[in-house]
Amino acid sequence: MGQPTNQEGADTIAELAQRANRASRELAKASTDTRDAALNAAAELLIAAQETILEANRADVAAAESDGATASVVDRLRLTSAKIEAMADGLRQVAGLPDPVGEVLGGWVRPNGLRISQVRVPLGVVAIIYENRPNVTSDAAALCLKSGNAAFLRGSSGAIRSNIAIATVLREALAKVGLPEDGLVLVEDLSRQAAVEFMQQRDSIDVLIPRGGPSLIESIQANATVPFVLDGAGNCHIVVDESADLAMAHDIVVNAKTQRPSVCNAAESLVVHAAVAETFLPRVAAALEGVDIVGDGRACALIDGASPATAEDYATEFLDLKISVVVVDDLTQAIDHVQRNSSGHSEAIITNDVSAADRFCAEVDAAAVLVNASTRFVDGEEFGFGAEIGISTQKLHARGPMGLRELTSVKYIVRGAGHTRH
Amino acid sequence: MGQPTNQEGADTIAELAQRANRASRELAKASTDTRDAALNAAAELLIAAQETILEANRADVAAAESDGATASVVDRLRLTSAKIEAMADGLRQVAGLPDPVGEVLGGWVRPNGLRISQVRVPLGVVAIIYENRPNVTSDAAALCLKSGNAAFLRGSSGAIRSNIAIATVLREALAKVGLPEDGLVLVEDLSRQAAVEFMQQRDSIDVLIPRGGPSLIESIQANATVPFVLDGAGNCHIVVDESADLAMAHDIVVNAKTQRPSVCNAAESLVVHAAVAETFLPRVAAALEGVDIVGDGRACALIDGASPATAEDYATEFLDLKISVVVVDDLTQAIDHVQRNSSGHSEAIITNDVSAADRFCAEVDAAAVLVNASTRFVDGEEFGFGAEIGISTQKLHARGPMGLRELTSVKYIVRGAGHTRH
Repeated sequence: MGQPTNQEGADTIAELAQRANRASRELAKASTDTRDAALNAAAELLIAAQETILEANRADVAAAESDGATASVVDRLRLTSAKIEAMADGLRQVAGLPDPVGEVLGGWVRPNGLRISQVRVPLGVVAIIYENRPNVTSDAAALCLKSGNAAFLRGSSGAIRSNIAIATVLREALAKVGLPEDGLVLVEDLSRQAAVEFMQQRDSIDVLIPRGGPSLIESIQANATVPFVLDGAGNCHIVVDESADLAMAHDIVVNAKTQRPSVCNAAESLVVHAAVAETFLPRVAAALEGVDIVGDGRACALIDGASPATAEDYATEFLDLKISVVVVDDLTQAIDHVQRNSSGHSEAIITNDVSAADRFCAEVDAAAVLVNASTRFVDGEEFGFGAEIGISTQKLHARGPMGLRELTSVKYIVRGAGHTRH
Repeated sequence: MGQPTNQEGADTIAELAQRANRASRELAKASTDTRDAALNAAAELLIAAQETILEANRADVAAAESDGATASVVDRLRLTSAKIEAMADGLRQVAGLPDPVGEVLGGWVRPNGLRISQVRVPLGVVAIIYENRPNVTSDAAALCLKSGNAAFLRGSSGAIRSNIAIATVLREALAKVGLPEDGLVLVEDLSRQAAVEFMQQRDSIDVLIPRGGPSLIESIQANATVPFVLDGAGNCHIVVDESADLAMAHDIVVNAKTQRPSVCNAAESLVVHAAVAETFLPRVAAALEGVDIVGDGRACALIDGASPATAEDYATEFLDLKISVVVVDDLTQAIDHVQRNSSGHSEAIITNDVSAADRFCAEVDAAAVLVNASTRFVDGEEFGFGAEIGISTQKLHARGPMGLRELTSVKYIVRGAGHTRH
């Protein structure tokens, strides 16, 4: 491909994973200062290697265009000087975040004098499978490195030249500060067989985080034997309660649906109390210009141009300028509708009623429940985590936006003075 | 089988899981008082139903004996009045523990005024597969109920009559306080096919915790599609450093190896610094009466009756009166040996050297690292958790002894005043 490869081509996926695993032990021992120095060195080297990276990227873009890729795919793939500057800024920002490793989560003394503490440690090897955008190579590696983990990455074939160029620079930065280059291993064999092997390196990989669409998630559920955390779909609802401030509800619905419809925390469904539907729905529908509205009978009767919704519509994450609407008679019906269709991501209620807010927060089972705020706020940056590796929609290990802390495990340290058990 | 069944026999595994899932929503809403009342009622009803349970158990024991089960299997299976009293006490003890649900783990206000908090919530449905001992039915259900989860249980066929009798009583207790009986669902179809289905109810089960031997763990790794937490093997080491108090080391090694050799936190391997091997090994070997000792050349030269260890010996969790011994030249060799063979459970060092203790704690990658204490202390009771569902040897979600907190997930609650994102 005319690009410098960052590993010997002969290594199997298992061997590459083992290399990352060996490196992870060195990373776990490295001080915060050393890891931050690697991140800052990587930022500098990225800027310095800009021309090489852009050249590799031009080859990826040309290949995508000749394959007939859509404009939006090409757009996500294409790097510019500004995007590389942004990647470098991202690396420096992550370097500036507090180090989660070594944090003491708790400690206590047992009646027998045994002293127990629980501390944060790196997970070890974090494997990430991601689609197109080459900046993920840098963003993901930065979060892994900051949290003391080795990054084991598999990008898409469409971005392989760009990813190799970026990974080469990041590996150089690791070496520059005396850390093992294999703290970042990018897999270059992008065959299906290699994908399955990637998901099954149970002896070497500590967690797999997929960043991609439903087909990737399905493949992981079918094939992965390593533990994984799913960055799943967001079929997010906004419930407009009887007591809602309707102007507030209007602004939040428009924001959550239209500000960036392609992301997982955009709203996909609107649930309106019958008492306010007549006032609210025509107004908000008019403001949702260009949005395709589907709804139940009562919603359609109040919205010009709305068409009937199917059960599947209510269960669908449109990721587009489309919204489903349902009119309900009370909060119980509203919560039932949300619970039936929720993907467990982010669910909001607009209300002025304390007991309605409390009930919604308690009964709706999702990573985030919001009161009088747009679902769009549910992400790592907006939560103040400084960076985000994804948003977990599962309940084990991490739930909701995942920052550096979610890339760690814990270890108990037990200190005695010759204690034996009776 | 002549026992009251606690579900209609016609339900499929998927239907049973769905019933537990529906019940889990009610349990999640129930107050601490109600859940504690159910636990206390269950304790009372267990005592009251003692004769029915013992009768069912006698049938299980008779079947096991006629199948030629070993004395230790029969012993673990057999219930007595005292064991039922102990189960009832266990239920009351769990009722007395602090409720993890609702704990606020943190909260902060964003610069834009958005208020974010993270609270503990039940996981939902906790599935547990366990082997023989019928008291697990009661113990596991208690921990699930206390933490607001529904319990979805599959015991062994050898204990099915006892398990059904116990589950029937626990379900009665749930109903007595107005909670859904399906807060505890015991699967009665114990075919292999049903086992695989049990592990694949991804829509209904939130976590699977296996409590059993290597073949169960293998089956779960091969078949499970639900997230699981492994209660894995403990190939635990004790490193006796050059600077160790040898009398202390002696007592700890004897305790960790012989006090209860069949459990996962018993020591399986001894790693001795060459500088103290000559003094220490003959003495400790003499004290390890009845223990089969295998070792490397240097160890065997110092221990009467020791035989050469294979690489497999060093990697094996004996769960028996057997120990592997290796002599090393320094702490680096000791840590390497531990890291190469550790199952990530509990690893101890006996030392008086601060830097050796610090290095061991930092570099050994295990759920628990101990300094100058027996590995036998690594369990939920000894850690002060009041109860234990298992000991996780994986790094995701939970690591080390798992108590009530490890049976919970988290939820973010976000409160705004009409916040929209720019």
